[in-house]
Parts: sequence; C-alpha cells; structure tokens
Amino acid sequence: MTTTTADHNINVQQKAVEEDLVNRVLQSFDACENPRLKQLMESLVVHLHDFIRDVRLTEDEWNYAIDFLTAVGHITDDKRQEFVLLSDTLGASMQTIAVNNEAYENSTEATVFGPFFLDDAPEVELGGDIAGGAQGQAAWIEGTVTDTEGNPVPNARIEVWECDEDGLYDVQYADERMAGRAYMHTDANGDYRFWGLTPVPYPIPHDGPVGNMLKAVGRSPVRCAHLHFMVTAPELRTLVTHIFVEGDPQLEIGDSVFGVKDSLIKKFEEQAPGTPTPDGRDLGDQTWARTRFDIVLAPGA
Amino acid sequence: MTTTTADHNINVQQKAVEEDLVNRVLQSFDACENPRLKQLMESLVVHLHDFIRDVRLTEDEWNYAIDFLTAVGHITDDKRQEFVLLSDTLGASMQTIAVNNEAYENSTEATVFGPFFLDDAPEVELGGDIAGGAQGQAAWIEGTVTDTEGNPVPNARIEVWECDEDGLYDVQYADERMAGRAYMHTDANGDYRFWGLTPVPYPIPHDGPVGNMLKAVGRSPVRCAHLHFMVTAPELRTLVTHIFVEGDPQLEIGDSVFGVKDSLIKKFEEQAPGTPTPDGRDLGDQTWARTRFDIVLAPGA
Repeated sequence: MTTTTADHNINVQQKAVEEDLVNRVLQSFDACENPRLKQLMESLVVHLHDFIRDVRLTEDEWNYAIDFLTAVGHITDDKRQEFVLLSDTLGASMQTIAVNNEAYENSTEATVFGPFFLDDAPEVELGGDIAGGAQGQAAWIEGTVTDTEGNPVPNARIEVWECDEDGLYDVQYADERMAGRAYMHTDANGDYRFWGLTPVPYPIPHDGPVGNMLKAVGRSPVRCAHLHFMVTAPELRTLVTHIFVEGDPQLEIGDSVFGVKDSLIKKFEEQAPGTPTPDGRDLGDQTWARTRFDIVLAPGA
Repeated sequence: MTTTTADHNINVQQKAVEEDLVNRVLQSFDACENPRLKQLMESLVVHLHDFIRDVRLTEDEWNYAIDFLTAVGHITDDKRQEFVLLSDTLGASMQTIAVNNEAYENSTEATVFGPFFLDDAPEVELGGDIAGGAQGQAAWIEGTVTDTEGNPVPNARIEVWECDEDGLYDVQYADERMAGRAYMHTDANGDYRFWGLTPVPYPIPHDGPVGNMLKAVGRSPVRCAHLHFMVTAPELRTLVTHIFVEGDPQLEIGDSVFGVKDSLIKKFEEQAPGTPTPDGRDLGDQTWARTRFDIVLAPGA
C-alpha cells in the first residue's frame, strides 16, 4: 500500500520520515486475524495520514480537532446523535448509502436514513392518516411498488415518517406521543395510499459543535422538505429513501446532508379548498395536496 | 481537487454517482470565508470519502463506527482523553509531530507530547530530585543544551515528567500529590542535571474503546519505557521529546503510540550499590543508573 500525498516541496529526508511512520503504523496491524478489520484499519490509517500530511496540520489544529470531537461526544446522548449529524453534514452518510445501493436498472434511488426512525410506529390501513395529530397541510400520497421487471409487489411493508409543519419530529416533542409516522402494506396490486402532511424544510439540530462548524463554513443547517420511506419485501433489496417537494426553495440552497436526488423530487399538487378528496375525507375549508410516488425495488436479500 | 480512489470494478455510472456526491460536498464549502478552514474541510472530505469508497464501507460498519466514536466520547472526561489515545494509537499524533518538526541539521528529534503533562510542576535546582516520592530506581540524568552551531544555551527551561516503577503518573494516583515531574533551567554553560527514575514500560489506559480496538487487531497497549522532556529557550524551536531506554524489551515489540526514534534511545548504565554518586547522594544498598542526553535545539520562534 502506498500513500498518495502530493508533493508539498518537502525535502526527501522529511518525506522519508513521514512515510516511514505510515509504514510502521500499517505494520502494527500485521497480527490482526480478521482480514476485513485489517483492511479497514490500514485504509483508515493511509487516508488519515494523507490528510494530515496534505494539509500540513498544525499542532493547534490537532488540538482543536481533539476538542471538537470531545464536544461532539459530550453532547451525544440517547436522544441526540451528534456523530451522525457530523457524518451527515460531511456527506459521509450519503456516500455510505451510495456505496451500498448501486443503481440497478430502473430501481428507485436510496438516500439517507436519518436519526428519527422509530421501529415501533403504529400500523395504518391503506388510505389511513399517519399524521396522528401532527399539524400541517394534509397530503394524499399514493403509488405502486414493483420489481425492476414491472411486476407488482403485494404485501410490501412501507414505513413512512416525517416532521410536522414546525419542522419537528414527534421524538422532539416534550411529551412521549407518537405522530407523523406509521407503516402499512401494499395491496394485491402492489398499490399503497395514505394521508400524510406536505413536507416542510427544517434545520437539523444546530446548537452544538456541528452547528458551529456549519456556521463557520457559511453553510445552511436546513434540510430540504422531505418525507421518509423504508420499503421491505422478501427477495428484494430494502429501500431507504425520501421524496422531496418540487418548488421547495431549499432545493436551490442545498440540502444540509446531501440527500437530494433529482429522481426523488415530486410535485405535490395543491388542491383548492372543497376539492373532492380521493376517499371522501372532508377537509372543510383547508387546502390539501396530492402526489404519486411509484417505487421500484432492486433484487436483493 | 480530484479523488484518488482506486478502481474497484465499479461501473462508470456508479463511479459518477459517488464522484458527483464528493463534488457537491466540496461545493458546500464555497462560501467559507476562512481560506485555511476551507482547505482543511475540503481535504478532510476528499480523504474521508476516499476511505469509504476504497473499503466499500458497509452500513453495519458505519453504524459500528458511530457507536465506537460515541463510546470514545462518553469515556472522555477531564482526567481521561480517549480521543488523544485514539489519535496516538493510529499514529496521527506522531504524524502531526513529524509534519511540524522537520529535521533541522543536527537538532534533536521530537516525539509525542502525551496526555500527562501538567503546567504547574515544581521547580528544582540543578541536581535536584524530580521523583517527589515516586518509587523506582534512582537515575542521574545530565546533558548540555546547545543550538545547532554548538553554542551552549544558558537558562533554557527544561520540563521533565515520567511515571513511577508501577507505570503510573502522579495524575493517575488516587490522591492529588504531584510526583515524577519538575522543571529546571540550564546553567551558564547550557548544562543540566537531575535525579529522576529509570523509566519503565507501561500500558496506556486500555479498559475503554481504544483498548478494545488494540485487542481486536492484536496490538500491545504498552509504551516503551521513556522520560518526557520539553525544552524551551528564546529564539529556538521548542522541543517536545522523550528519551527511551536501551535494552527495553518493548522496543522490539513496538511502542503503542509510535513515538520511538533511534536517536532518542539512551543507555541507562546501571551502577552497583555503593558506587559513588555524582553529587554525593547516599543511596545505601540500592542500585542506581546514569545516562546522558545532550539536546540540540533548532532555530525557531
């Protein structure tokens, strides 16, 4: 394994000292009996040392990094995961998704999982309301789940979760109530449908070290409006994704965790008050929206 | 800036997806007004994404990494710095030292600072005892501080610190007493001398996540026996270094933080009981040791 550090006008002797150190660290993993762990540690060391050498990291900067990571660790608890936010805002989460979800024919693209999924959301019937009391514009969302050959996938499990009109997920509420999340199963034709809320943009938690980093580099902490999906079915690759909202101004500014893919931007068509709803629900004098998201699952475990 | 990921037999489309993501993350720093911070973030992103892409990091491994960093953060407090241990054991601390202490003519080599320095150690007279009650074999250590042209450096400040014969620094004692550390100043000839303890090998704290990592990869947590020096003098580059002990068996196994340099290994000559000491100190029936460490400071701030 060789390092790829560019030439920084460092002299031959200095370069040899730095490379010798990298090689000694790599050799320290020679006795590792787990070949995958060995590969991970060796690659980590090569890239970490390349970073330090490429930027000629100062000792003050190293100290700053230690203090930064310490602060990230100390703000993290069972409700706040600042390391995930750090990974998300550096695009590392999305790159991991990209590496593990290679495009397969016409299959739907994946995006970040995020920190707000709960595995004990309630089940709703098809056409049911997932809002559970969360406030926002009602949105009718429907679609069909198929495999890449176009065959419908009946009984696929669809988990959906989203924030309310204030940009808060239920886990961020002061009380313990669950809202804005549910799961359902596709019918015999692979179809699904439910009432949710038109997604709105919201900032990731930015009152900690990651928020300070974003501010220091001049970046917005705001995520583009989105609604989360996780779709599972036997023999098919699990899909974790979002749909985004066409016309959301944050799409121009950029998503703080790099989750947007063009294929996932959907038109939420706003309906005038009184427009008949698909299931006869009476929304009084409220506007509502509707969209369609057809889902294609790749083959997989 | 281009990425350097090797070809992993990934197809052109997949490669484009991954590179597009890297470029979008890099562009997110375009508004950063601090050019050095921008450079650091861009390089960090390139190397972090290269790592994820090179090893094809799985989602389980990503989750493991998040949990590992969380555990490192949670064990860290004002007495335990697990992020420093992590940096040390990956050789990142030593590489930072290497980058910032390029060899200058015959100047003495630097090594890691470590987590056990205190800035309020007591002053001792030349020839005084720094042990302060810490147990171990008495060792007489002397030398001369010069610049690279051989001129003695009078009044250089020399901080020294080391562990006791049980491998513990004073900050690891249950009580608050200070021991095994002091500072002194060179005399008009640049000479210094003091009584300390013959260094012994000891393990870094290894009951936490970093210790688990070392165990998983089959590495020893033990540091080669050493005594810390920090030497400062006006107009000269501050030197942070150790001396190591010739014959220490850990030198063959390897230093857990990659701090050893051949030029820093010194012979501690053991003296039979009753051998007259340099300053007439009566050590009774105890053996003692002596060594010499001449220090050459590079020019600098």
